[in-house]
Amino acid sequence: MKVNDSNTALHLLKPEYPISYEIPQIKQIISKLSKVLKFLEKATPSNLINKKTKKIISKNNLVDENTMIPESTFRLTSYEWGVTYYGLLRLGEISGLEKFSNYTFKRLEMISSLFHFYKKNKNVKLEENSPIYSVLYPAALDDSGALCFSMIKAKQINSSLNLEPLINNFINYISNSQFRFKDKTLARNRPYKNTLWIDDLFMSVPALAIMGKISGNKKYFDDAVNQVLKFSQRMFDGEKGLYAHGWVEKVQPKPKFFWARANGWALMAMVELLSLLPKKNIGYKKVLNQFLEHLKGLVSYQSSSGFWHQLIDKNDSYLETSATAIFTYSIAKAINEGIIDKFVFAPIAILGWNAISTKINTNGQIDGICVGTGMGFDNAFYYNRPTNKFAAHGYGPMFLAGAEILRLINSNRFNFVEGSIQLTEANIK
Amino acid sequence: MKVNDSNTALHLLKPEYPISYEIPQIKQIISKLSKVLKFLEKATPSNLINKKTKKIISKNNLVDENTMIPESTFRLTSYEWGVTYYGLLRLGEISGLEKFSNYTFKRLEMISSLFHFYKKNKNVKLEENSPIYSVLYPAALDDSGALCFSMIKAKQINSSLNLEPLINNFINYISNSQFRFKDKTLARNRPYKNTLWIDDLFMSVPALAIMGKISGNKKYFDDAVNQVLKFSQRMFDGEKGLYAHGWVEKVQPKPKFFWARANGWALMAMVELLSLLPKKNIGYKKVLNQFLEHLKGLVSYQSSSGFWHQLIDKNDSYLETSATAIFTYSIAKAINEGIIDKFVFAPIAILGWNAISTKINTNGQIDGICVGTGMGFDNAFYYNRPTNKFAAHGYGPMFLAGAEILRLINSNRFNFVEGSIQLTEANIK
Amino acid sequence: MKVNDSNTALHLLKPEYPISYEIPQIKQIISKLSKVLKFLEKATPSNLINKKTKKIISKNNLVDENTMIPESTFRLTSYEWGVTYYGLLRLGEISGLEKFSNYTFKRLEMISSLFHFYKKNKNVKLEENSPIYSVLYPAALDDSGALCFSMIKAKQINSSLNLEPLINNFINYISNSQFRFKDKTLARNRPYKNTLWIDDLFMSVPALAIMGKISGNKKYFDDAVNQVLKFSQRMFDGEKGLYAHGWVEKVQPKPKFFWARANGWALMAMVELLSLLPKKNIGYKKVLNQFLEHLKGLVSYQSSSGFWHQLIDKNDSYLETSATAIFTYSIAKAINEGIIDKFVFAPIAILGWNAISTKINTNGQIDGICVGTGMGFDNAFYYNRPTNKFAAHGYGPMFLAGAEILRLINSNRFNFVEGSIQLTEANIK
Repeated sequence: MKVNDSNTALHLLKPEYPISYEIPQIKQIISKLSKVLKFLEKATPSNLINKKTKKIISKNNLVDENTMIPESTFRLTSYEWGVTYYGLLRLGEISGLEKFSNYTFKRLEMISSLFHFYKKNKNVKLEENSPIYSVLYPAALDDSGALCFSMIKAKQINSSLNLEPLINNFINYISNSQFRFKDKTLARNRPYKNTLWIDDLFMSVPALAIMGKISGNKKYFDDAVNQVLKFSQRMFDGEKGLYAHGWVEKVQPKPKFFWARANGWALMAMVELLSLLPKKNIGYKKVLNQFLEHLKGLVSYQSSSGFWHQLIDKNDSYLETSATAIFTYSIAKAINEGIIDKFVFAPIAILGWNAISTKINTNGQIDGICVGTGMGFDNAFYYNRPTNKFAAHGYGPMFLAGAEILRLINSNRFNFVEGSIQLTEANIK
Repeated sequence: MKVNDSNTALHLLKPEYPISYEIPQIKQIISKLSKVLKFLEKATPSNLINKKTKKIISKNNLVDENTMIPESTFRLTSYEWGVTYYGLLRLGEISGLEKFSNYTFKRLEMISSLFHFYKKNKNVKLEENSPIYSVLYPAALDDSGALCFSMIKAKQINSSLNLEPLINNFINYISNSQFRFKDKTLARNRPYKNTLWIDDLFMSVPALAIMGKISGNKKYFDDAVNQVLKFSQRMFDGEKGLYAHGWVEKVQPKPKFFWARANGWALMAMVELLSLLPKKNIGYKKVLNQFLEHLKGLVSYQSSSGFWHQLIDKNDSYLETSATAIFTYSIAKAINEGIIDKFVFAPIAILGWNAISTKINTNGQIDGICVGTGMGFDNAFYYNRPTNKFAAHGYGPMFLAGAEILRLINSNRFNFVEGSIQLTEANIK
Repeated sequence: MKVNDSNTALHLLKPEYPISYEIPQIKQIISKLSKVLKFLEKATPSNLINKKTKKIISKNNLVDENTMIPESTFRLTSYEWGVTYYGLLRLGEISGLEKFSNYTFKRLEMISSLFHFYKKNKNVKLEENSPIYSVLYPAALDDSGALCFSMIKAKQINSSLNLEPLINNFINYISNSQFRFKDKTLARNRPYKNTLWIDDLFMSVPALAIMGKISGNKKYFDDAVNQVLKFSQRMFDGEKGLYAHGWVEKVQPKPKFFWARANGWALMAMVELLSLLPKKNIGYKKVLNQFLEHLKGLVSYQSSSGFWHQLIDKNDSYLETSATAIFTYSIAKAINEGIIDKFVFAPIAILGWNAISTKINTNGQIDGICVGTGMGFDNAFYYNRPTNKFAAHGYGPMFLAGAEILRLINSNRFNFVEGSIQLTEANIK
């Protein structure tokens, strides 16, 4: 029988989706992320070694001036790896699988052992290119915020970790040492004097917020809220609902390049803050409004594949993995935390996950990640940024996105309604 | 001689247009639509048959419980076919060729014969999957509005048709039985409670408007105007000038997917209303303003080919036939009715016709029609909707567009001015 | 060693740019533009000839009724060639290479010799298709403005040129003979009555402005300012930051086709005016604001390649050479004149130059220039305009862009900062 309007429900014909259009399954998510974990475990060995003998240091009290972090495919003390530690911690918590959290615990132990050795032995010279150098002597928000935040999270889960001195060192840098404008906005003098990088919201706000939480000291929350508002005043384009990547005090008009990953950092900074900030804080509503405005813009630009574009508002720029992972994570988390409407946003988060999970290759590596990107002043620069599977920025967000998608599907029911993925109404509270 | 700036009027060189850029010709339009008619006549037989003998029922008074509508490629009592009936009636009127109107008359006669038999013989069981079931017992606006409207049009042209009881049954459903909000807005509980579908404007407003006209009862006009305004308040995006496909009361923010065909139904509902509503009605100007705002948005998104995209504001979504046909029809009709500026809109309508007429294949079928589409909450759903030549939604709009383009070129002169299709000024009144 | 996050600064990996991403070099610019000059010198011979003998007229006083401009690939008295004359004059000034300016001097000498002969000998019949006809009897802004402006520039550099009578003839046409609205806006009756062409800003404003400068008569400045403001009120779309190509008094809504080159003429008209208008003129700030609003819109639409699209707001329309050249020139000039921020705009101008300079082919011709384009009322017309290397509109803007890019790199330092082209801070005043 030939298909026609009378004999077939044409509207139920399943199209061939370029990216599988499906409700994610727990087993698949765990399996894909386990593959990435396996790759990372091998790529980033977890035992300190002796510089000369290359032998593993079996106990912490054996650390000496010849002890080093072994050669590693990824830099273990970068902000990107701070995000990876956080992602694996959350995935461990949500999945109940300790292998994920253990990755983080082991690497942080290495880092803290070395930190404590050098703290105690100030006369032992430490080379500036040592991974531990920026932990001992943070000189940028990139050195501090993400690691600080993930160390606090790690400590909360595994109290045996001796991370407090590292945490305090970082938070002190953020609160007291980083260059700021007169209104306290965290700033840089790169590439020009008095420049803001929207990425810096993430490099500071989550750490300040969690510090507010564990210390009970409101000043941290106030600083975090202030950063969100001050950056947004200057860098948020209300018409597009997007953040410019950079802001330079002395130029006019301000450059308007809506680089995806930087928008990811901004969104993630806000979702972490909203998850920690007491609702009674006078900044809560302001941050929430800003978060919703940003989301509104972002959602309107999601591509048909679920990915976002490298320049969010340019649909002829490439589809980028790390930003999509951060958006997917932030949206799913905001749903799970009850911050945003799940009926509207869950299908969007699912689309995002379906997209990025195709980027995990058979070796457990993640493809399509834009490499580190400084501030640019023209389109060609952003459009043509290389992608690389060793760009560390995509790994943490992938784990985080997977973790929150797990949480989302664990506590909600989805179904196909006339071919469209929807949250089932029974879940309305 | 080699072409150059001095020896050739380079600006008059004719480019190779991907879709022929021309002023449509009456003969061509009739010829193409006759081909479609021929296909439909064969695909949808016009004589009732005896269920058992398969023989044709020659006279209405021979209809009995074994009488049925013969097997058909298209469902003859769908709202889509309501539009087809209307389209063929208008094409018949405008072209003066009765073969087009006759198609409608014959199918409506079958439907009314069966209707009257079951009305008289209430004890005869009627199966729910009978095409006539939803005519006897309408349970949705989809069952009622388009058929009601086209039956009234048919009755106006051919008074011998016994359609009044069917018409009253439908209009009664729309006015009194369909679920409404407290403010009388026509609503559904699908897929979620208290949901609006912009498509429903078309499934109600034209029927209400023409009922207002023939009954002289203002309440129908007021209901129609109210629907346009209430739907628009909730679902019209003023920045884009487009309607969202769906609106769900309890979610926030509202989903924003600007599906093309649903925008077509909204535009068409308004143009039918404006053609029937007395100008002195206090709603006239409001509806007109809304119509103009919608047109402004739509026109800004017409593609270079004359088609509109499946998601109107996404130029990487596919070019869709049925929506383009509805827009082309609505614009051409609004010009012909004197509602909008013909100098501005006629070239746009012509582009639309040139585009959709390429979709009539050699079998008289229409390609590139998006199948029936429920409400979705993500881009991938809409972007990837299948197209099918048996999707009934494109047929009526194709006839309607052709009819109004005929009317447009019959009463205006066009010419090429430096290569650009333009209405000649002599026509300005 | 395999590249990874630890052993390589991934963010410094150089991508493969589709168009070379580099700081333009003086030598290259001169070399490319010299090639174009060479082509033009051959394509447009510079000596008057005797119609019958085809021999060259060696001296001006030998001009008679048989004297003619020799056959030429480009029309020497078109507005496009007016721009070419200006471009070569500026390139000559900035590069210090007389060969560029000489091209202009020689052609203007031919034109003025013939002009003076016919002025003196009014009884000698001149055929309407003679290139000199529209110089003697200008009948449109296209005949007048660009030639007038470039003749004044030529005269300023080379006082031996006898151009004053031609200049006065042109400026008189603009000021007193061209059709205007009651509010003095320069208008046409083509294709409809009371129509504005945004291109006309360029065909009038620079000539009026420079006349204001050399005459000291404020009325010229006031007229120029008034044109910018009156056209902008009617034709500037504030949301997009772009000008519509045409405006027709009696239609509603106004057509909105943002054709690139016409936007180029508008931008260029403003930059010429701002370079000449005394800052104390009460119109200065208004024109500057309008210029900045236009720039803001334009910059947001520059493509990743540095080109702009044929329809600026349609990223699926082709990349067009002449408009990109005009934008590049106007931006670079505005930087060099201190009108706009160089840190923001210099990388954009450089991108533009890198793009258009690839369009100079090995014969010194310029590819990808949209041919002359009348007013259109649909997308298909604009999208499908042919391009042609003999379309004269791209040549002048290419020389102008090259000249101002030379000036830009002569007086500023650029460097690559993490892969991005930037003006070095030391240059901040």
